[in-house]
Amino acid sequence: MNFKSTWYLALLATLLSFHCYAQEHEWRVLDPTKTVLLALPQGKVVIELAPQFSAKHVAQFIKLVKADHYDGNKFYRVIDGFVAQGGPKDGSAVDKAVPLLSLEGDWPTEKNWQFTKVQDNDLFAEQTGFKDGFPLGYNPSENKAWLLHCPGVIAMARSNTPDSASSHFYITNGQAPRYLDRIMTVFGRVVYGMNHVQAISRTSVIEGEEPVPESDYTPMISMKMMSDVSQEQQIRLEIENTEHPIFQQKLADRRARKNAFFFKKPPPVLDICQTPVLTRLLKNNG
Amino acid sequence: MNFKSTWYLALLATLLSFHCYAQEHEWRVLDPTKTVLLALPQGKVVIELAPQFSAKHVAQFIKLVKADHYDGNKFYRVIDGFVAQGGPKDGSAVDKAVPLLSLEGDWPTEKNWQFTKVQDNDLFAEQTGFKDGFPLGYNPSENKAWLLHCPGVIAMARSNTPDSASSHFYITNGQAPRYLDRIMTVFGRVVYGMNHVQAISRTSVIEGEEPVPESDYTPMISMKMMSDVSQEQQIRLEIENTEHPIFQQKLADRRARKNAFFFKKPPPVLDICQTPVLTRLLKNNG
Repeated sequence: MNFKSTWYLALLATLLSFHCYAQEHEWRVLDPTKTVLLALPQGKVVIELAPQFSAKHVAQFIKLVKADHYDGNKFYRVIDGFVAQGGPKDGSAVDKAVPLLSLEGDWPTEKNWQFTKVQDNDLFAEQTGFKDGFPLGYNPSENKAWLLHCPGVIAMARSNTPDSASSHFYITNGQAPRYLDRIMTVFGRVVYGMNHVQAISRTSVIEGEEPVPESDYTPMISMKMMSDVSQEQQIRLEIENTEHPIFQQKLADRRARKNAFFFKKPPPVLDICQTPVLTRLLKNNG
Repeated sequence: MNFKSTWYLALLATLLSFHCYAQEHEWRVLDPTKTVLLALPQGKVVIELAPQFSAKHVAQFIKLVKADHYDGNKFYRVIDGFVAQGGPKDGSAVDKAVPLLSLEGDWPTEKNWQFTKVQDNDLFAEQTGFKDGFPLGYNPSENKAWLLHCPGVIAMARSNTPDSASSHFYITNGQAPRYLDRIMTVFGRVVYGMNHVQAISRTSVIEGEEPVPESDYTPMISMKMMSDVSQEQQIRLEIENTEHPIFQQKLADRRARKNAFFFKKPPPVLDICQTPVLTRLLKNNG
């Protein structure tokens, strides 16, 4: 191959890559093999898993879901404005049989690591932003990134030991408990049915109130991989592509608040956990 | 009165003031004339009003509550992770009869203005902190302070015009929409039953879903001043006194995270909206 044909190939590759970029969609379809369907008495919840960030936690969680580990488990630690935590009966045979996981709290970033930046000088991180729809923190000074404890993320509970998570998980249900970032493993986020998560019975009461009887705890009717659910029972969703220019323009618009409602402009900053990434039903659903 | 007796009086006053300070309680009893009892189908909600910060809004709200203005109204704009908004039917006679209110978004602070500081360099404010249990922002450079849109606050809705609030209100139900700070009037906060606020039916759906019929909207069964409720029906509460040294010590402890669970310490910062101010039932309630 001579120089000229190499040059033509390079040009072709460039054109193709531009073409692919132009075709990249504003929305992406959820992969049912990385998506969980949680049935609660009040309705259905869909969780997108993040194997690209928390590989071992997701692998173990999928294995447990496929083994019906969570079916019939209860949310036994539910604190308003904090978390809804569930899992098998503590110390039961099924509980003890689950292998312990090493913490995946943050990860080293490669040179030229890319993400959709949202904000500098966040209280808890040098930078915040999105990747694949997931809110994350990034400290360039350390070359480290991590998934954030925004409302509606799912993370593994653990004891005081860092590498002690197994199958008990929590879903954040209030103002982001960001102090848990990096010391817990976030491995997915609720993309549908967060209202049903918010309606999980609280098990925690205020001082002076009667404790909530265990019979009132909200059960997980079933937890299944979306790919293991019959076509008619599937909820097929699309998520905004946070790497698409249209999403990035939305961030800029949200920061500028040009709408007439804002007679006085707020500070031009964005709280990453208060920046929505939208979900919609896939057309011709099912 | 000679110099000596003046001196004795000054000493006595000093001793009394120390005595009063020492007696100041870690908890304060809610004043039933500044407290609202909202009955929802799913349970009871208690709201503490803030006449010391938003006098005109609270005065009008109390007047409306006493006139049974809200009884039977519905939450007609409920967005998960944002707000539950309710009020009378838009454009109805009862709606139009309510006078418009001037915005009470922030206020000028006097020299030596005091509050319990929580954090510097918050994204949206130079400083954040508490006063009388309410989360607020404070910009010393402007001598201005304001109530924050933390989860569970109640604020008046308005049109694009700043001074257009009347009786329609919203309660924040997700990550604090802090971009609304100072351009809306926050006038109270939920101190009990936030779980029931979280369970208000969402009226907003995702793209592709059927709209929610109005018959599914959550009604306000009744809204009354706690002082107008019979003794047996009252919920009598105490709130942590955010000006007490014990609360201030709790802030310091929360920032330091000395518990063994924190094998790696998080950044020593506090998100004001993720810093709890506790409520408890008054002993011998009712």
